[in-house]
Amino acid sequence: DGNIADGQAKSSSCAACHGATGKASNALYPNLAGQNEAYLALALHGYKNGGRTGGQAGVMQAFTAGLSDQDISDLSAFYASQKP
Amino acid sequence: DGNIADGQAKSSSCAACHGATGKASNALYPNLAGQNEAYLALALHGYKNGGRTGGQAGVMQAFTAGLSDQDISDLSAFYASQKP
Repeated sequence: DGNIADGQAKSSSCAACHGATGKASNALYPNLAGQNEAYLALALHGYKNGGRTGGQAGVMQAFTAGLSDQDISDLSAFYASQKP
Repeated sequence: DGNIADGQAKSSSCAACHGATGKASNALYPNLAGQNEAYLALALHGYKNGGRTGGQAGVMQAFTAGLSDQDISDLSAFYASQKP
């Protein structure tokens, strides 16, 4: 399962666009705070394996390429835990 | 610009998965309540034009195929206006 504290520690790259508290810095990007953990994991795996395209998928594919399954679980747990 | 009331009137198909109040019925689907309006519009246009793939994109492409630009603006305004 995902570890919230570990997810926070791994989220520095995410925060530039999605915000340190999961509120996006630009309205064209999604807020992540309080999003469903399973959906977040599905999205990250989809970017990593190339199955998800559209929007900023190119950027997201680069950011997710080096993530392990545990990293994805931790990041998903962290953002899901934040207050929207 | 999007009209919230018109968006609500057009949201019945969306509600089965994303909830009448923007809280998804299944954790594999995203909550939409309070999501950024511009992001929601980008996502809907992406599904409609086929540029966005992954996850439930096949279902979303079918649901968005008949939406006009105004429909997309209205639905985006409606979900963005809901309390997360």
